[in-house]
This record gives sequence, C-alpha cells and structure tokens, in this order.
Amino acid sequence: MRAVDIIRKKRDGHRLDTDEIGWMIGGIASGEVADYQWSALLMAIVWRGMDDRETADLTGAMMRSGSIVDLSETPGLKIDKHSTGGVGDKTSLILAPIAAACGVPVPMVSGRGLGHTGGTLDKLEAIPGFRVDLDLDRYRQILNRCGLVLIGQTAEIAPADKRLYALRDATGTVESIALISASIMSKKLAEGIDGLVLDVKTGNGAFMERLEDSRALAEAMCAIGRGLGKRVVALITRMDQPLGRAVGNAVEVAECVESLRGHGPADLVDLSVELAAEMVLMGEKSRTLDEARALCRRVIDDGSALDRFQRVVEAQGGDPRVIDDLSLLPKARFGSDVLAHETGFVHSLAARPIGVATMLLGAGRARVDSTIEPAVGVTLHKKVGDHVQAGERLCTILANHEGSAFERAKSMVQAAYVLGEVPVVVPHLIVERLREER
Amino acid sequence: MRAVDIIRKKRDGHRLDTDEIGWMIGGIASGEVADYQWSALLMAIVWRGMDDRETADLTGAMMRSGSIVDLSETPGLKIDKHSTGGVGDKTSLILAPIAAACGVPVPMVSGRGLGHTGGTLDKLEAIPGFRVDLDLDRYRQILNRCGLVLIGQTAEIAPADKRLYALRDATGTVESIALISASIMSKKLAEGIDGLVLDVKTGNGAFMERLEDSRALAEAMCAIGRGLGKRVVALITRMDQPLGRAVGNAVEVAECVESLRGHGPADLVDLSVELAAEMVLMGEKSRTLDEARALCRRVIDDGSALDRFQRVVEAQGGDPRVIDDLSLLPKARFGSDVLAHETGFVHSLAARPIGVATMLLGAGRARVDSTIEPAVGVTLHKKVGDHVQAGERLCTILANHEGSAFERAKSMVQAAYVLGEVPVVVPHLIVERLREER
Repeated sequence: MRAVDIIRKKRDGHRLDTDEIGWMIGGIASGEVADYQWSALLMAIVWRGMDDRETADLTGAMMRSGSIVDLSETPGLKIDKHSTGGVGDKTSLILAPIAAACGVPVPMVSGRGLGHTGGTLDKLEAIPGFRVDLDLDRYRQILNRCGLVLIGQTAEIAPADKRLYALRDATGTVESIALISASIMSKKLAEGIDGLVLDVKTGNGAFMERLEDSRALAEAMCAIGRGLGKRVVALITRMDQPLGRAVGNAVEVAECVESLRGHGPADLVDLSVELAAEMVLMGEKSRTLDEARALCRRVIDDGSALDRFQRVVEAQGGDPRVIDDLSLLPKARFGSDVLAHETGFVHSLAARPIGVATMLLGAGRARVDSTIEPAVGVTLHKKVGDHVQAGERLCTILANHEGSAFERAKSMVQAAYVLGEVPVVVPHLIVERLREER
Repeated sequence: MRAVDIIRKKRDGHRLDTDEIGWMIGGIASGEVADYQWSALLMAIVWRGMDDRETADLTGAMMRSGSIVDLSETPGLKIDKHSTGGVGDKTSLILAPIAAACGVPVPMVSGRGLGHTGGTLDKLEAIPGFRVDLDLDRYRQILNRCGLVLIGQTAEIAPADKRLYALRDATGTVESIALISASIMSKKLAEGIDGLVLDVKTGNGAFMERLEDSRALAEAMCAIGRGLGKRVVALITRMDQPLGRAVGNAVEVAECVESLRGHGPADLVDLSVELAAEMVLMGEKSRTLDEARALCRRVIDDGSALDRFQRVVEAQGGDPRVIDDLSLLPKARFGSDVLAHETGFVHSLAARPIGVATMLLGAGRARVDSTIEPAVGVTLHKKVGDHVQAGERLCTILANHEGSAFERAKSMVQAAYVLGEVPVVVPHLIVERLREER
C-alpha cells in the first residue's frame, strides 16, 4: 500500500477500506507514513467525512496502536462515563463513587482542562497529595481495591491518537465529527471497559454549541460502540449555564463532596444520578433505569458513595481527611462579590464567559503548558430562574491576585448575568437520550 | 501569524490575504511552518480552490523564495515558451532557435520527462556532450552570446516550489489548477523573462485530458501573468496523437534538426512556427502575427535558425557536428517494424500508449530516478488520416533489448493504431488561443 493512494481515494470522496485505515495508523509507529501525509489525509477527512464503518475502523486501529488494558481479573462489567466538557462539569467525581458503591467497577481515564472548560484531573489534583499519573498495574490494583480509579492518559494508551491529536491541533483539522468521536472512543475503549455512558454537552458553554452538531457527535460515538461491540448510551445535556454553583478546582471538589453528602445543588446531583443510573443499568446491577436511580440515591443517603470516594482519594495518595473537613482544601487569597445592578429574574448566565473568566483567574489553561491555581474560581449564588434584588450578591469571585486579569474576569462574570423582569422557566437539563439496541 | 489559523481560513472556504500567503511560503525556509501544516493547507486548497489574486500571490511568493534572474544586461524583451507536456512534443528545440534568430532572446529553463511524457532536457542530452546543468552566470553568458540558452532548473530558482512539489507528490495534492499553474509560473517567471507563450495540451496524451480542464489551466496561468505584470499568451493544442513522427530522445533531436532544415513534418513545423511567431510578436520583433509567422519561416529557409541551434549546442558543450551529420547521434541496436493487419485509414493513434511504450523501451522515466536510453523510441510512418495497405509498415520501434518490456511496448504500439474503412479529417492542432489584453 502507498499513503498517497489512500489520501487520493479519500480526497476523491471514496470510502477507505478497513485494511487501508489500519495500514495508515500502523504507518505512524513504523514510520512508513509521514506526518505530512497524515495531515493531508486528516484535511481530506474533514472535507469528505467518514461513514460509521470507517469511523469504527479508525477507532479500532487507534485503540490497538497501544495497550488495551486487560481488566478480566476484575469481576463484572466495567463501565465508564465520558463528557465532552463544560463549565462546572464535575459529575465524574460524584457518579464514579456512586456507580462503584452500586457494584459497578469504574475504571476512569480522564483529561485536563483547556480553554474555558475544566478537566477532571485538575480538579482531583486540588486535593492535597492526589496522584493521577499512575501506571496501568497500579490502575488495576486500585480498581480492584476501591471499585473505581481516576487517572490520566498514559503513554501506553492509544499513542496513535496522541500523535494525530497533536497534528490535528496544528493543522486546523480538529473539527470533524469522525475524527473527534474516534479520538474520544479509542482512548476510552482502550481502558478495558465493557460499556460507556456519554454526556454530550450542547449550548454556549459546550464544545459543540448547536444541538444538531451535538446529536451528530453522539450518534457517531454510539455507532462506534455498535461497530466495536461495546455498550454505549449517550445523553445530550444542556451546557448553557454552568453546572452546579462552583466553577474552579478546589471549589468544585468541595461541591462534589457536599453532593455525595446529600447536600448538592439539584441540577448537578440530578444529572450525576441520571448518568450513574445509566452506568448501573448498563453494568447489570439493576433491571430498570428507575431501579438504578433509586439505587444511586440510596448509596448517597447511606454514605457508601462518599466512603468510596474517600477510599479512592486515599489509595491515590490524596489526603483522605479532606472528605471530612473541606477547609483542608486550598483557599483563595480573597473573595470579591459581584452584585446585581437591578432587581429581577436571572434570564441567562452564559457558561462560556464564566469558564473564560475562571481560566483568567488561573483555574484553567489558555495553553496546554499553563499552570493551574487550584483555589481560584467562582461561586454562583444566583442561577437562571432565581430572583435577585438590586445590590444582592450574584456570585463571588475567588482570586489570588488583583490586577488586570482579575478586573477582566470580574467584568466578564458581571456581563454573563442577564436579568429580566418576568420569571423564566429553566429548561430540563437532559435534551435527548440515545440508546443503542443490544 | 499562525499557520493553523491560515489553514482553518482556507478550510472554511475563505480567501487568503497576500500577507498570509507570503508568510506561509516564507515559513518553509524559516522553519516556522512545518511540512505537515503545508500539506494540510495544500489539501484545503485542492478542496476550496484559490481565486486569481490568491494564485498570483502564491506564484509571486514562490518565485521570490529564490533568485530571480536579472537579465537586464540582455537587451530586448526576453520571452520563453512552456508546454504542459505531451508525446513527441519537441517544439522547444525548434522554436527557441527560430525566435532567437528573429531577434528575441530566449532564456529557457526546462524539465525532464516523467511517465508517458518526454522532457526537453532528456532530448538535449541525447546530443553527445550537451550540458543542461549550468549555473546562472553561465546561463546569462550563453544567452548573450547565442540569443538562447537551454538549461534545467537550478537549486536557486523557486526552492519553495521544489519543496511544495515534493509534498504534493506524496500527499495526493497535485491535482489543483491553482497549485499546478502557480508551480509552472513561479519557475518560469523566476528565469528573468518578460513574457511567456504557453502551449497547453489537451487530449488523451496530455496531462489534462479534457478541454475544459486545459482551458481552466490556461486561464489560470494567463491570470497569473496579468496579476504579476508579465505578458502571457496561451495556445490550447491537441495532444490526441504524437506530435511529428519521432518519439524518443535522439530521434526527436534528429526530427528537430530536419525541421530547422525545412524538411520537418507539417504538424510539428506548423505548431513550432505558430508558437515562435507568438514569441516574436510578444518580443516586439513584428507588428502583427502574420508578419511574425513570415519572419519565422524566413529564418528556417535562410538557415539562420539552424545556425543558432548549432551555436547553442556548441556553447553548452555539445558536439556541433551532430547538426550537420545526424548519424553522430546515438543509435538503437535494432529496429522492429509494426505492420498493418488490414487495409484502411488511420482513424486514431493514441498518444498516451505510444508515450508509455517509449518509456518502457527506456526513453522515459517510470520513476524520477530511472535512467534514460537516448537512442530508443518509435518512428511513426503513418499518422491519423493516412491510408495504409495491409502488411505495410505503420511504424518502427527502435530498441536496445528484446524481452518482455520490448514485447509489451510493441503490442501497446500496435493497439494504439485504430484503422477504419472511411477517410477521416484531421482536426486542426490549435483549438483555442487566449491572449491577455495589455
């Protein structure tokens, strides 16, 4: 085979064969395919697309480019969740302990935040001592001991995806449903899981802002699951305003612990339970979704989910006392309240500017090599639908430094709130549910 | 500027600015733009195209990536010709001496053959001792002394084009009118010329087989000339059957000398004179095209064109006695006649299989690093429209080796001839003429 012939075939709008896709992915490691050939193919894929079979083939080939974790010694169906990312999206830290407490092993490999969206790893590292860079042996051990494990991507998992992702980032070829879904799914499926629950965000704070794009991405990922024989369910959920009341790293961990204690904000807890219930159903620990939901609520109420979280924190080197005493989390130097200029109802609270403002404060990354300030962020006292009096606090900004970045962040947050005179109805968070037939 | 932003802009179908195109070309030498970024942009250009202004900007930037030859010490308007390539297309060796003899300086930088098409440099090197690898100082000297010079591309001319061409070849991004025309024109305009006559071939033996594609290429190259302030005329000419009666290297040189002696085949001589006349008109050595044609015929008749050719052969290290004694050219080991199976008229004589057969014999290159056998080729005794008796010779194959390649070549040549019972009219060689308004 020759790379140029395969590139020309896709350029001319034809479907690539399974062998051709496998050969191109194999060529990354063998050196038979140059980066400049892959980037031309990537652009041709952005142009011409890939059908479900091609996308599944690409996913499978990227998955097999590295280790596929063998979790056969862990009994039961291993289930993970993936979110396409949002602002205040901290459900992983809540649903993983819930599902584990319900008896579903959760081997979770997460990412870091970039731009306006946060990342699970950054949140976990706000817990003093918490280590996310574990090797695969340790990953298996902790999964067996705690029923869940929370690590970052290792060099062994899907190296072809890592290389292609770097190329896509530098060549304007990120925006392709086929490439995005294959990238996500290849990493997730290499974790050794049997099924995956997807939280595909839609709205101004999401990677895909338009519902039709989010739906296409969800459908593509479900099709990959079907093609590769894995159970996949996708929920399309709104990301128009931040999820929960905390945006940052330490403040989000605190909110997760509060949620596992049974005191979390309704939107965050409801979505976490809904996703966890899908995991419980998929993991065959219940017969119906309603039964799964009840089970998830029970492990919150009886403290067993919180106990799981405390155990995994300790197993991964974190200070377990944090779970009992949230004051041990890093604290920002000062808080600055943002006040309402008028009386009325919060009509909208745009997620994206809140995310960008939090990044400006130091909670996120403008570039992949930025460092994180774990304590900074925003606490939202008012959300969409809430009534507010002029002069009342809308939110509190938690910062370490005054100066121009702080001022910009504060004015972005202020502008993110739009108030109106009439009450508004908050739309339901879950827009659609895509369930593959088994 | 960032390459990724420029790639995304073209990917999304927008026009690139002059500065952006210049920066991307400059980035090849500076290392600021990686090969994998350029190849993604090339694919986006294949997808989205470039308008006339962008194509002229690309051409100008590639031209300025190396030396632009300063021919200001050579008086008069310097004019060159470029052909998109065909089978038996040897007009350069005829028209360059003609135009020079008419007083138009012809600084010609040519290429080598690849695939089924021959190359001017390979033909010239069939003359014992002829050197095409001259540096730019020598190029200027010979132009001043002989009125013409015939060399190959140097490393100093348009290095960005050389790099991009290699990338295009490896990434399936050759087929773009904008990229093809910018590549041709950047090299030609860097020669230091004031004007260019284009011979854009169309038909089964041409790079562009369909007339509309050939026309689009001709129009794009004329638009580049307009954009960069150079005189450009394009003739679209048929390449359905080989031009002239000789296909190979030494045999084509012999046919050129015969043509300059006034004994060439009509199609070859007429096209050479037509192209030379355009050069003479463009070079302001005549007021009308008719006058230019007459002048061109006169320099053949009075021997001054042949004399020019002999002078440039000698100046470039070739054996000048070849011009007086064609038997000094390399000779093939044996000739093998291809006979007509039936009586009738030649209805078609496909150029492409004749070109491929000649390549198989050793006259051309299957790959860029193949070596050339100068003596081999095909002499066509019958061409389209000719009457032939069963058993009469259609052509003679000149070869050095018997064996499977020879047998394949011979059966390809036999199959290239299609005979019929009724007489056929040979269509005029020149299909269209595109002349830019000054």
